[in-house]
Amino acid sequence: MGDSIFAAHVEEAEMSASSHPLDDCFLGPKGEQRTFLRDMISLVLDDYIFWRKNYYPKDPPGFLYRTLQEKTSVEFREKFIQELSWLTSDLKLEVPFFSPRYFAHIVSEVSLPGVIAYFATLLYNPNNVSSEASAVTTRYELEVGEQFAELFQFDIKRAFGHLTSGGTIANYEALWYARVAKFLPLSMASALKANRSPLPPELSRSVWELLNVPHAELEVLFEVFEAKAIQLGLDAGTLLRENSIAQLGERGFEERIRQQFGEGYREPVVLLPSMAHYCWNRALGVLGLGRKNICSLATDEQTRVDPHSFESALGKCASEKRPVLLSVGVAGNTEFGAVDPIDELVTARNAALSKGIYSPLHIDAAFGGYFACMFRKGAHSAVPSENLIPRRVQTAFSAISQCESVTIDPHKMGYVPYGAGAVVHKFGFLKEFVTEPAPYALDGIVEDSSPHLGQYIMEGSKPGAAAASVWFTHRMIPLNTDGFGAQLLSLCELARTFYRKMEALRSVSGHVELVPLFAPETNVLAFIVTPKGAKGLSSVNRLTRQVYQRFGVREVASIQSYDYLVSHTRVSTDSPLLDHPVLQALDRSKEVSLEIVRIVIMNRWLSGNTSSGASYIDDFLALAYREAEEIVFSA
Amino acid sequence: MGDSIFAAHVEEAEMSASSHPLDDCFLGPKGEQRTFLRDMISLVLDDYIFWRKNYYPKDPPGFLYRTLQEKTSVEFREKFIQELSWLTSDLKLEVPFFSPRYFAHIVSEVSLPGVIAYFATLLYNPNNVSSEASAVTTRYELEVGEQFAELFQFDIKRAFGHLTSGGTIANYEALWYARVAKFLPLSMASALKANRSPLPPELSRSVWELLNVPHAELEVLFEVFEAKAIQLGLDAGTLLRENSIAQLGERGFEERIRQQFGEGYREPVVLLPSMAHYCWNRALGVLGLGRKNICSLATDEQTRVDPHSFESALGKCASEKRPVLLSVGVAGNTEFGAVDPIDELVTARNAALSKGIYSPLHIDAAFGGYFACMFRKGAHSAVPSENLIPRRVQTAFSAISQCESVTIDPHKMGYVPYGAGAVVHKFGFLKEFVTEPAPYALDGIVEDSSPHLGQYIMEGSKPGAAAASVWFTHRMIPLNTDGFGAQLLSLCELARTFYRKMEALRSVSGHVELVPLFAPETNVLAFIVTPKGAKGLSSVNRLTRQVYQRFGVREVASIQSYDYLVSHTRVSTDSPLLDHPVLQALDRSKEVSLEIVRIVIMNRWLSGNTSSGASYIDDFLALAYREAEEIVFSA
Repeated sequence: MGDSIFAAHVEEAEMSASSHPLDDCFLGPKGEQRTFLRDMISLVLDDYIFWRKNYYPKDPPGFLYRTLQEKTSVEFREKFIQELSWLTSDLKLEVPFFSPRYFAHIVSEVSLPGVIAYFATLLYNPNNVSSEASAVTTRYELEVGEQFAELFQFDIKRAFGHLTSGGTIANYEALWYARVAKFLPLSMASALKANRSPLPPELSRSVWELLNVPHAELEVLFEVFEAKAIQLGLDAGTLLRENSIAQLGERGFEERIRQQFGEGYREPVVLLPSMAHYCWNRALGVLGLGRKNICSLATDEQTRVDPHSFESALGKCASEKRPVLLSVGVAGNTEFGAVDPIDELVTARNAALSKGIYSPLHIDAAFGGYFACMFRKGAHSAVPSENLIPRRVQTAFSAISQCESVTIDPHKMGYVPYGAGAVVHKFGFLKEFVTEPAPYALDGIVEDSSPHLGQYIMEGSKPGAAAASVWFTHRMIPLNTDGFGAQLLSLCELARTFYRKMEALRSVSGHVELVPLFAPETNVLAFIVTPKGAKGLSSVNRLTRQVYQRFGVREVASIQSYDYLVSHTRVSTDSPLLDHPVLQALDRSKEVSLEIVRIVIMNRWLSGNTSSGASYIDDFLALAYREAEEIVFSA
Repeated sequence: MGDSIFAAHVEEAEMSASSHPLDDCFLGPKGEQRTFLRDMISLVLDDYIFWRKNYYPKDPPGFLYRTLQEKTSVEFREKFIQELSWLTSDLKLEVPFFSPRYFAHIVSEVSLPGVIAYFATLLYNPNNVSSEASAVTTRYELEVGEQFAELFQFDIKRAFGHLTSGGTIANYEALWYARVAKFLPLSMASALKANRSPLPPELSRSVWELLNVPHAELEVLFEVFEAKAIQLGLDAGTLLRENSIAQLGERGFEERIRQQFGEGYREPVVLLPSMAHYCWNRALGVLGLGRKNICSLATDEQTRVDPHSFESALGKCASEKRPVLLSVGVAGNTEFGAVDPIDELVTARNAALSKGIYSPLHIDAAFGGYFACMFRKGAHSAVPSENLIPRRVQTAFSAISQCESVTIDPHKMGYVPYGAGAVVHKFGFLKEFVTEPAPYALDGIVEDSSPHLGQYIMEGSKPGAAAASVWFTHRMIPLNTDGFGAQLLSLCELARTFYRKMEALRSVSGHVELVPLFAPETNVLAFIVTPKGAKGLSSVNRLTRQVYQRFGVREVASIQSYDYLVSHTRVSTDSPLLDHPVLQALDRSKEVSLEIVRIVIMNRWLSGNTSSGASYIDDFLALAYREAEEIVFSA
């Protein structure tokens, strides 16, 4: 199969690396902005060194300058350079994320603001566990929290957002907060009962009712409780902590309730789309809740959660009186970039309230959160039309404002270095209920009026450099259509182009076919490679696997061995993805999963051309066809 | 009170910033090594840029170079520089950790290897969630894990060590692993019972016995279980996961056991020294175990855990049949740097086995782990004599080899940037039992033969740069007496000098006294400030508080406002610390805690002199006395 058949497509889609407002934010695949990067790095470095030098400038140096000429010092530097060259030689085998030839995982070159601010702050090495160890960067972190709260249209005065080392920890934290909140009313009632205080009408409710108080009502309820505590001469916060589920544990709390109320409650469940990230399964294990208490929600043929599945799960929980700790929506999922219909989840959740069941909604937007920027108008550009981005995506993102918490990872679509995740809690006051009692020894830091993040979050010591990196990136690339919105829209467009080209090639004669599974909603494209006329899923899986192995990360002696890089995933054969026309009729008896090639587009330079003049996309498609043909023939 | 009285002390302790083998590893308080740092940064940066440029070198640039001269690009860079100068101006208010005038918290300037390797790797931005996203740095991370295993004399082939974002997450993970391990034998028996399989003799034991199987026996037990599973035609790993506590949850698992065995088990406890870090309290809440299930162990007058308290707690648990999930030893505690008598904990733990109770021991050496390097002989230097470091400290560190897991934070005494914690599990095979079942979608990464760290740890995406930073630092500063051992020993000596000077000054006439609470075991010094002849604790607390506020981090317009920086902590009035002769007789009726000034020495330049010629230590002591006198007089 020659190259000629691609000529038409190359021409039709002739793409040039036309300039884009955000190109300046990146070093570029050839290090195009190297002069600027060098200049900035040397600026922040000198600036830092002289800050150091000029603190008590008359204090003498730590060691005499002449010692730097001594034999041991000279030898030290010699060894340093040798060892460093070993490190940098090793690093030459790292995967070339920066290249338009890499479209495998959710990773790319980081932005210049991200890397420069990280480096600048790394030198100062602040620790955001407390503002005592980070005079500036804790403030930055809280500002970033507010920016995310605003992005999702939460009330920024009431929300509490902060960074985490990654999305996994952010999701754990959301679940941890949800558990605290779920049992708060019951804790209040239990604490008063334990102190032989009559319950106020707001708390004189059944166990089930107390397990279904919306977060929005908790603050007022606490005031009622506080008044009662004062009557008892007790501190409400302490009283509540001593009777909390954190204090008593999963088993102890339920036992206590059973004793006090004459009835317990069933194990709480978490409603989770089947496409949710695997860290959610782990979260249930880590938090002592048990994975068996995950109720898995069905997804549709584009891997989005089915809102009817959610609705009926909620109904079932209501009728069985199973408390729902948390329901999760995904925007978008890491495998396929699909965005759950969050608006419909919100509607179903609100409707269920009338059945007496309340579930907080958490949106796992670790991957997709920054796409919300496409729908926030900046000063210089408009929100994309429906032709560019389906209305349903915008509607889904808008509905996050009705949810209780959200995870968003700056180190994914925010183009900053690892590790930077984030979580935003819409009801920020909940943070007061996760703190530990009487911390005599908070890393030696106590009762400052200044923010002490370590009290309210899962983690302890954490890099202020990550906060500065995100904060500065947001200064340079705003969270609206002028900034990230424009960048991410261009990626969605590229994914669509990729998809269309792939679809168009299917009509070309040959022995194999690259079949996209569905039109991408964001910047992820999934496809299979099938021998034409395949009878069984096995042969499709085999060919797909061979193709992704050909373009996958492997042991190489030089990165020059990689021409293009893709990733892969798989879904169980009972997934609606297998309803695809190409797959429907296949014999799937021998297979348990469908193998899939996965493409994630984060690099705008993919719109350019290779040295041969063909666009990267065409060049890859031609090559992938060629390789697949060859595999089939050589078999 | 004049300066004259200090002259003698200054003379007596005349210290010069004499050179030290590891001085070369730091930039120095005046940026002494700026030329070298600049040179290295520019080396790694250029090297990186040309790596980029030379991947498919003939591919054209992402954008034309001339576009860099266009108005929008010029404006972008202008804005960038302005915004960056805003950031770096803000950072000028960060706390001067690098200075010998800072001895407040466990933080200092980072080492040159640490910062240079971090920056070099940050450019490549590998992600250690999987080796598919970090061809090199996952390997580095596992090597660092082995180095720590070796440091604590674990069998490096059997241990599993890796980095975390910090010590808090490392401690959570240790507890998570401990829970999985604790319930493993019971899970095996339960799984077989559920499949109507007769139990092999090794598993035909009581619930209590199955809850007290040492980790060392689990691997063999699993082989027995595996043989049974094969007989049933089932996969042992899957079967075990489906019947694990992670699957069934705290409540569900106990219920299941009760049904199957006709008896349940009491809520498991964690034995925790009262000086343990507050993250342990949180851990019990997060993991659903309940803080009430912490059994707090008494500490002695130097804040070390009392092994008799541990012994009797174990005995009590044995007689009450309360399973012990984990016991924690601390080396050293973050408040006072004291090292628990781990050898005695080990002895007590082993002795308790004869009573049929088994507790794994975890050592929280987040802060103190690197001090173990003082006791590992390098090629060029010896292990310090008993005069320099009390034998008991060495004995304590040696006993870590008998414990099940350990936390150690490179971002504390390892002088690397945040966030870098680590955990080492002596029984590495446990990692196979914390993984999630059937990960169809591990970030799209599945079943490679290459290491996929994300399966085995609490976190997901994580910076490879942190791993490279630790790895490279260990190359330049080995984990023995030639490297970290020498550095940390010099800090212990400085702390001892500080202590002796402070003690010596107490005999000098005046109205106030700086009273160290005990001789430092490592590099932390704690003292109170008391008006001479004070009757009540209130006046001591008041003066101490005023002194630490004078030398504490506060809102400042310039860091020049800080002459010296200390931290503070407090302990409850029932602490044995109050048995100190100065405090014993005081009326403590109005106070609930003792206020303490805390000094942590991480900066060797503290051994030098200020511009006035006095040593930093003498200068600080003179100033602190002056300020305290003034406070007392102006009151």
